Amino acid sequence: MKGKTIDYSRTVISQVMLPSEANPAGNVHGGEIMKMMDNAAFVVAVKHCRTNVVTARVDELEFHQPIFVGQLVTCHAHLVFVGRSSMEVSVTVEVEDLKVDKPPQRALTAYFTMVALDENGKPCEVPRLLLKDEKERAAFEEGKRRYEAHKQSRQRS
Amino acid sequence: MKGKTIDYSRTVISQVMLPSEANPAGNVHGGEIMKMMDNAAFVVAVKHCRTNVVTARVDELEFHQPIFVGQLVTCHAHLVFVGRSSMEVSVTVEVEDLKVDKPPQRALTAYFTMVALDENGKPCEVPRLLLKDEKERAAFEEGKRRYEAHKQSRQRS
Amino acid sequence: MKGKTIDYSRTVISQVMLPSEANPAGNVHGGEIMKMMDNAAFVVAVKHCRTNVVTARVDELEFHQPIFVGQLVTCHAHLVFVGRSSMEVSVTVEVEDLKVDKPPQRALTAYFTMVALDENGKPCEVPRLLLKDEKERAAFEEGKRRYEAHKQSRQRS
Amino acid sequence: MKGKTIDYSRTVISQVMLPSEANPAGNVHGGEIMKMMDNAAFVVAVKHCRTNVVTARVDELEFHQPIFVGQLVTCHAHLVFVGRSSMEVSVTVEVEDLKVDKPPQRALTAYFTMVALDENGKPCEVPRLLLKDEKERAAFEEGKRRYEAHKQSRQRS
Amino acid sequence: MKGKTIDYSRTVISQVMLPSEANPAGNVHGGEIMKMMDNAAFVVAVKHCRTNVVTARVDELEFHQPIFVGQLVTCHAHLVFVGRSSMEVSVTVEVEDLKVDKPPQRALTAYFTMVALDENGKPCEVPRLLLKDEKERAAFEEGKRRYEAHKQSRQRS
Amino acid sequence: MKGKTIDYSRTVISQVMLPSEANPAGNVHGGEIMKMMDNAAFVVAVKHCRTNVVTARVDELEFHQPIFVGQLVTCHAHLVFVGRSSMEVSVTVEVEDLKVDKPPQRALTAYFTMVALDENGKPCEVPRLLLKDEKERAAFEEGKRRYEAHKQSRQRS
Repeated sequence: MKGKTIDYSRTVISQVMLPSEANPAGNVHGGEIMKMMDNAAFVVAVKHCRTNVVTARVDELEFHQPIFVGQLVTCHAHLVFVGRSSMEVSVTVEVEDLKVDKPPQRALTAYFTMVALDENGKPCEVPRLLLKDEKERAAFEEGKRRYEAHKQSRQRS
Repeated sequence: MKGKTIDYSRTVISQVMLPSEANPAGNVHGGEIMKMMDNAAFVVAVKHCRTNVVTARVDELEFHQPIFVGQLVTCHAHLVFVGRSSMEVSVTVEVEDLKVDKPPQRALTAYFTMVALDENGKPCEVPRLLLKDEKERAAFEEGKRRYEAHKQSRQRS
Repeated sequence: MKGKTIDYSRTVISQVMLPSEANPAGNVHGGEIMKMMDNAAFVVAVKHCRTNVVTARVDELEFHQPIFVGQLVTCHAHLVFVGRSSMEVSVTVEVEDLKVDKPPQRALTAYFTMVALDENGKPCEVPRLLLKDEKERAAFEEGKRRYEAHKQSRQRS
Repeated sequence: MKGKTIDYSRTVISQVMLPSEANPAGNVHGGEIMKMMDNAAFVVAVKHCRTNVVTARVDELEFHQPIFVGQLVTCHAHLVFVGRSSMEVSVTVEVEDLKVDKPPQRALTAYFTMVALDENGKPCEVPRLLLKDEKERAAFEEGKRRYEAHKQSRQRS
Repeated sequence: MKGKTIDYSRTVISQVMLPSEANPAGNVHGGEIMKMMDNAAFVVAVKHCRTNVVTARVDELEFHQPIFVGQLVTCHAHLVFVGRSSMEVSVTVEVEDLKVDKPPQRALTAYFTMVALDENGKPCEVPRLLLKDEKERAAFEEGKRRYEAHKQSRQRS
Repeated sequence: MKGKTIDYSRTVISQVMLPSEANPAGNVHGGEIMKMMDNAAFVVAVKHCRTNVVTARVDELEFHQPIFVGQLVTCHAHLVFVGRSSMEVSVTVEVEDLKVDKPPQRALTAYFTMVALDENGKPCEVPRLLLKDEKERAAFEEGKRRYEAHKQSRQRS
């Protein structure tokens, strides 16, 4: 299987937040944002392996600021690390208040671990990641450390 | 009021199509796509004038091919023409089948006419459009012709 | 195939607008109204041909006034013109403020072009339209002109 | 307060059933139909009294046949009985399979009791019902019997 | 078929009410609550018979107090009576205002009659109900009276 | 401020998974589950502090098995650790296939960190946690370690 670059599957998805996505306090429901991030990670992972994928883990999902109805929310997602059948996707969420001329603000980040599935629903091998520079290589190594730490903690439990 | 370029408000929004957006035949509901296009036109118009805007017209909305659940749908939207308080936004919809390595396909196009509103809900003046080349100027002139044709047909009716 | 009258497939659908259908400004989302109009056109077209149908075009969709949550929205839809496999449906949207004793107001109009599909998803012939009076015949001729204008502009592009 | 006829507030609402309204078995969710019936009763009651109204009771809601995605569902609703501040609305649901030329079928019936509320949220008086014939008078008497039976059973409990 | 106790299928479902579930007045839509109650009755009935089930009737659905966005809504549901293929489920809805330290309040009650279906969609036999005490037996007898009253009124109509 | 026990705010919420919550592959969308978990954490946190709360972090969200439409999903949520204004909530998701007589299966776990907000939207003090046994104390200490690790990594970045 031929390797693919990080840029090959890099994805941006975005939506205007509607009142139907509000929580009881009137802000955008955190769960709606997580759903949108999960969709972004899904797109990246499917583009990389062109098979079915499922979400296996979400880590370090951290809300930096509240999100309001009417804002434009944009998810920037790209692969960080791939193992045999699992892919770690970094998702960054930016929000933009459309009525003022200010750059988008980072509202959220997280790592989504996706697993590629074959036609029988079993984990299957994914293309390896072609890393183009030192920054991508360093991020890959960090993703590998997270991957191995989770694997070990699963074996212990 | 300072003019703004077309690129200043150019917008791309995109979403993965979910089963909750299907029509009775199982494809994506045309109305969901129109809602997404309307959101894209809304973002462009608000970015241009930084006020409230409402949709006034939709023209030449033409479906080139069906859209399926699971596809990534992307709306590319940009201003074509602005009058005193109305803005014509071109919206092009592309669809991408994530499991195959093929470029996105054009699925839909339309022109949305948005009107800027002041705080009392009355139409208000919008920044003029700075056109950077011959292509933008030609599209602007076509938009102006559509705008004037609708204005005349409204006066007749 | 036996012809059918316009009244045979004439349809009225209506809904109370709920908060989940609002746009960021708190009014009813234009996209929700377009979705409802698309449903009305769908019903008319399926009743005429009793096959699958898809939306092919929307034209001259013009919002005459904003629509608010809590209003009763009614779509009146009927055939105007039919070609070999395409059907043009006129959809008029009326809104009614339930708390005051006033007749419904026209809020929106548009023409939806629907195409009949056979079991293989290919365009198929539809029953011709039996026109009962001069008014229906005049509207049919206008619809035919729109149909032929679009066909020509498609061939040019 | 002037009385009003049953026809004054008689209401028909209708919708095409979409996949997002299905239950786990794939049919239309009974709760979606009840929601639509509640909306129809709401429209009738608000038209009669032109104030806020709330649903107080639902009785004899009986499903005569399953409802499928893609069918056109129509709620016919009209007043049967009014007390001082409560209004009993009969709601009949008909379903229509659009691809076959058959009359709509009765799928559901129920009585909804709505209560008119003034601006402080307290029950308030509603216009009396002008009955135009023997059939309406007989139904009114039956509604009155149900109303008084519920009042008694509430006092007992 | 072995009988089962009422406790075997007793079910509690609960949800936080979101703005997308509001009615035009801003309270929770009665139809959303009915949908949730229908789900609770569905779970009880499926657990008792482990087959498909459909809702056949709803009776004595009575709203004791309004429900607001942000409240926690809990449905307590349990079997009252079973016939050959029909099961009567009592559903009680409690609401809880999360910001104050007060016990949940009863907001709604109703009886849902569910029918078990075999693989061909025909009514099928359900396990009988093992009643453990006098209270359950008395409730069962009342349920039986309601069941027979409905059966008779159906035969008359 | 008086301390409160973990049991005081312990919460169970549950829902039947509907087709409108499916992802493109037809399973339940991971984002819908995260939304439901977020709601459970919200209920626990509001019950503990009786103020507004926002989600600040999600950690170690791990999917143990896929979830299907029609399954009953139950979130068990309880406090693990509280700091000055932040509360860590453990959320465990169990799924139950209603048509078979098998105990629910653990499908998902995660830690949600919620922050209490005063009326001006500023973080405010929350009641301390009364720990009743060694197990609760051990879990609290682990939660404290996670809390301090995140605080340090935030200061570094």
